[in-house]
Amino acid sequence: MLTLEENELLTRTGPGSPMGDLLRRFWLPFLLPEELPAPDCPPVRVRLMGEKLVAFRDTSGRIGLLDSHCPHRLASLFFGRNEENGLRCVYHGWKYDVEGRCVDMPSEPPESSFKEKIRTTAYPVRERGGLIWAYLGPRDLMPEMPELEWARVPESHRLVSKRLQECNFAQAVEGGIDSSHVSFLHSRLRSDEPDNLDSSGMIRVEYMANDRSPRFFVRETDYGLLIAARRNAEATSYYWRLTQFLMPFYTMIPGTPGYPIGGHAWVPIDDERCWNFSVTWRHDRPLSEEELSYQNSGLGIHAYVEPGSYRPLRNKENDYLIDREKQRTRTYTGIEGIGEQDMAVQESSGTIADRSREHLGSSDAAIIAMRRRLTGAAIALREGTEPPEASQPDAYKVRSAAVVLDRDVDFAEGARQETRSIP
Amino acid sequence: MLTLEENELLTRTGPGSPMGDLLRRFWLPFLLPEELPAPDCPPVRVRLMGEKLVAFRDTSGRIGLLDSHCPHRLASLFFGRNEENGLRCVYHGWKYDVEGRCVDMPSEPPESSFKEKIRTTAYPVRERGGLIWAYLGPRDLMPEMPELEWARVPESHRLVSKRLQECNFAQAVEGGIDSSHVSFLHSRLRSDEPDNLDSSGMIRVEYMANDRSPRFFVRETDYGLLIAARRNAEATSYYWRLTQFLMPFYTMIPGTPGYPIGGHAWVPIDDERCWNFSVTWRHDRPLSEEELSYQNSGLGIHAYVEPGSYRPLRNKENDYLIDREKQRTRTYTGIEGIGEQDMAVQESSGTIADRSREHLGSSDAAIIAMRRRLTGAAIALREGTEPPEASQPDAYKVRSAAVVLDRDVDFAEGARQETRSIP
Amino acid sequence: MLTLEENELLTRTGPGSPMGDLLRRFWLPFLLPEELPAPDCPPVRVRLMGEKLVAFRDTSGRIGLLDSHCPHRLASLFFGRNEENGLRCVYHGWKYDVEGRCVDMPSEPPESSFKEKIRTTAYPVRERGGLIWAYLGPRDLMPEMPELEWARVPESHRLVSKRLQECNFAQAVEGGIDSSHVSFLHSRLRSDEPDNLDSSGMIRVEYMANDRSPRFFVRETDYGLLIAARRNAEATSYYWRLTQFLMPFYTMIPGTPGYPIGGHAWVPIDDERCWNFSVTWRHDRPLSEEELSYQNSGLGIHAYVEPGSYRPLRNKENDYLIDREKQRTRTYTGIEGIGEQDMAVQESSGTIADRSREHLGSSDAAIIAMRRRLTGAAIALREGTEPPEASQPDAYKVRSAAVVLDRDVDFAEGARQETRSIP
Repeated sequence: MLTLEENELLTRTGPGSPMGDLLRRFWLPFLLPEELPAPDCPPVRVRLMGEKLVAFRDTSGRIGLLDSHCPHRLASLFFGRNEENGLRCVYHGWKYDVEGRCVDMPSEPPESSFKEKIRTTAYPVRERGGLIWAYLGPRDLMPEMPELEWARVPESHRLVSKRLQECNFAQAVEGGIDSSHVSFLHSRLRSDEPDNLDSSGMIRVEYMANDRSPRFFVRETDYGLLIAARRNAEATSYYWRLTQFLMPFYTMIPGTPGYPIGGHAWVPIDDERCWNFSVTWRHDRPLSEEELSYQNSGLGIHAYVEPGSYRPLRNKENDYLIDREKQRTRTYTGIEGIGEQDMAVQESSGTIADRSREHLGSSDAAIIAMRRRLTGAAIALREGTEPPEASQPDAYKVRSAAVVLDRDVDFAEGARQETRSIP
Repeated sequence: MLTLEENELLTRTGPGSPMGDLLRRFWLPFLLPEELPAPDCPPVRVRLMGEKLVAFRDTSGRIGLLDSHCPHRLASLFFGRNEENGLRCVYHGWKYDVEGRCVDMPSEPPESSFKEKIRTTAYPVRERGGLIWAYLGPRDLMPEMPELEWARVPESHRLVSKRLQECNFAQAVEGGIDSSHVSFLHSRLRSDEPDNLDSSGMIRVEYMANDRSPRFFVRETDYGLLIAARRNAEATSYYWRLTQFLMPFYTMIPGTPGYPIGGHAWVPIDDERCWNFSVTWRHDRPLSEEELSYQNSGLGIHAYVEPGSYRPLRNKENDYLIDREKQRTRTYTGIEGIGEQDMAVQESSGTIADRSREHLGSSDAAIIAMRRRLTGAAIALREGTEPPEASQPDAYKVRSAAVVLDRDVDFAEGARQETRSIP
Repeated sequence: MLTLEENELLTRTGPGSPMGDLLRRFWLPFLLPEELPAPDCPPVRVRLMGEKLVAFRDTSGRIGLLDSHCPHRLASLFFGRNEENGLRCVYHGWKYDVEGRCVDMPSEPPESSFKEKIRTTAYPVRERGGLIWAYLGPRDLMPEMPELEWARVPESHRLVSKRLQECNFAQAVEGGIDSSHVSFLHSRLRSDEPDNLDSSGMIRVEYMANDRSPRFFVRETDYGLLIAARRNAEATSYYWRLTQFLMPFYTMIPGTPGYPIGGHAWVPIDDERCWNFSVTWRHDRPLSEEELSYQNSGLGIHAYVEPGSYRPLRNKENDYLIDREKQRTRTYTGIEGIGEQDMAVQESSGTIADRSREHLGSSDAAIIAMRRRLTGAAIALREGTEPPEASQPDAYKVRSAAVVLDRDVDFAEGARQETRSIP
């Protein structure tokens, strides 16, 4: 439970808000490369933490991210001409480069020096790991990019997708680190549908089904939180599912050994919507045809989106196409797609959940710790302390894991190897 | 005319508002049985006086009406699994019975006593008279249900329908007791379309057409108001149309002897929308095929609704499909359906009419009295006096009527028999 | 740049606002005659500067413009019966004439004098120049109508159209007097598409292409502002484009000699939408088939509107059907239609542009002067000085022009003949 004030602190990300200031210390993924496919392609509208922006790829291939309004008379640069290394407003021909400099002002007399005085908001942009990222913070504090494993494996080892989520980002992050819901939300009622798991995988599914109330352990780390869900395995062993919360909005799904791993980033569009970037990757080899085929089926974490948009076809307007008969006989929710199942419960709490009405149990330990970490960092920043995670990119070299350990072994020690990413 | 403050008092029904508190002392119809047709059927979303709720029928056939948000982390119970006498949240499997008790909490350790501490908002529900009713007030003050005649006749004697009305409930109630508009809004321009009335009925239609400015008389009663509209009939007689306003939102239409009677309940969804429940009934015998056929035609008080919804096909978005040529030559409004004609004028005053701009005439006496009765009761309740009507269910044993009386006879006396319901 | 307060002053037009009071001193075009085509035709909804109204043409052909809500119980007169020189509310039959008098009140007793006390808001209406106009100000200050040339030429000499614009009126007026955008927004990239211009016209197009940063000169006049854009022509001459801003929202487009002239009026619907009335006219002869054909093509200033509405088919919801390939290779914007190109940039600044974020250059001199004229007049009115333009209808006898003058000639002197309208 949070007070209303704490809830506001956690969820508001507009310019000048404490959480908004905090998020502006980190690099934020915001586009897929396919949205800016080639030099001088059409610009695209971008909204990030409430800011109205426009992105374009210039003639040299560089990406610009500018205030959407031309500083002259505020016409939208979305309608602009993307040409010769700059985006030109169609109203009076003023032109801006990726740095926000006004490089042409044909409506003013040639001798005018007015052009030199005009500079529009422009944010640094980088491409990495199958995503386009921006940094919206103070330029002198711009950090290196986080060394997330999925951002560093070869392209062939990774699948990235993007979908709209119609709720506040923090609510989605909470779902991402909520290891306990897996035994319910995503479960099936009948065991006659094989999961294509080997015997090791089958045993783990059994552990999850047999012990649906795992004990939770949370440790503070350099990157954020290491979250452990402990279930009974055999008489002398535990089954541990280890997932990380990486500041400020990354999560990873504990994988079955030998299978690809899944991860997420939730980036605020505004306070009532966020982008979900979903990544499936493996560090050891390219994703196989079979693996890609499953992930692209719309049944896993990669939602099936409406063509020409990034809005899932199964969404809140249509109750995620819930099938009550399937819910009665086959799956827990009657909703298809792991991503959509998550969306359904996360969005149904309200666009901004009123956390003053919650009742948290012992299985919510990670949720509580994540909120404290985020709001604590926001308050610390307000008081002058920069978030240390932003300047420790190597701290992000971790990986989620699921391991069976003897009962007397510490989970962080015992899984040290499995939770280490490629160097 | 009301002041802006009085208008707010009359129209606002959210939790904690004076009128909301008053309505929460009465049973409120809110669903048709067809919406919860069988045990363990899918739950349905309900909004009542601004409260977001979810209704379900459990394995034993009992109906639950719960806060729509699971008290754990606020996921919507609309997506819940309705199984084994409880509604189970799909996020973490917490399960609630119709009383709001948490009867299963599988995500917490078995030894946890947390489950006992969780109780969600649950309102008492009853089925009666072809409707499902709820009581949203203090449990210790829960009254008996009102003994409305239409709720007590056999099912074969009654037709019930439900439609969305896109304005405040009080505005709709005003239309329901406005006996004077009948001579205009619902009238026809040509007499060559027979009304299927017998000679007694034809004479009454003539009385209404000949005297379109009836005198109004209003009497305070145990259940609310008895409203009399007096028209000239023959030289020594008056034609009286008697209609009741029954607290807090019931009205009845004066019927032609031998024909079924019509009644309404207007229940706030929120302050800008209400449910209209329309009832046609007779106390003496089942409704005939012919009577049902007319009522189901969409031309009477039962509006034709869009399939799969309770929104009328003729609605404010499409100007109620007004046909200007028909308005010119055949009917007063050019809008089909008595229910839709009422909706058109009631909704067109604004979602919440600004009564500070009205000009009331002598024909509005009942409107004025109804407002005083409702707001007076709301203020009295605020000052500690419970509404007496809620605890006098037998007071509702009345029926609307239209009678011809000698001019020297008091209308309440003269129509005592006709306005008495079945015992 | 304006302060937020100045921006509010310029853009807010509701009842009681300073700018709203100012606009209410002038006649406002608001309907096309085709919208009220015949006596006793259906009434139409009207919204002007935030006021909800209903217009009707009575049996005698007179036009009424009334408060949309019946003063009795506020039902909308839009659903009213237009019959026998009055509009009758369908709720209780109250009837109003074009002066707002209640001329029938059949629901009240015949002897009642209540009818005499009821008078609803009714605004004077006139038909002129292919438009229907209203005056919403104090009746004793009602001025003559402005003697705009396009309103006085024969019907055959004029084409009038109407389209919705989804932004504040002041923003649209700014676009109308912004002579500098013509070299950009409306320009073509290839010269192989002939403009059907004669050699004199071709030279002018060349002047505009060669000198895209004209010098601006603005003079205060009786009717508003005379705005001059000076471009280099030949060695000893200038090419002058002269356009007028006529209080409070009229503009004219400098024409090519021998071709029709274009003009606009922007009338606030509310503060976030306005009507654009576009006029093409010639004073010397009827518009030819060819001229009408071009203007009706949707490529000029007369936008192509969705059938049955006045909303352009190319609008903000569909990004004005921008064609990025055409933008790359053929036209500056990739948007078809001069009117739609204007709409795109004007609407894209926001429904009410935040002028505190602008950066105005020397080419914005007319914009600055127009804002001062409008807000200055609004402040003066608040302090008791009526706007002089409203009572000087003959001051509007001017016409836009484009002329080539020797460099030593004053533009107002040199173009005196060309900027004078028909007497």
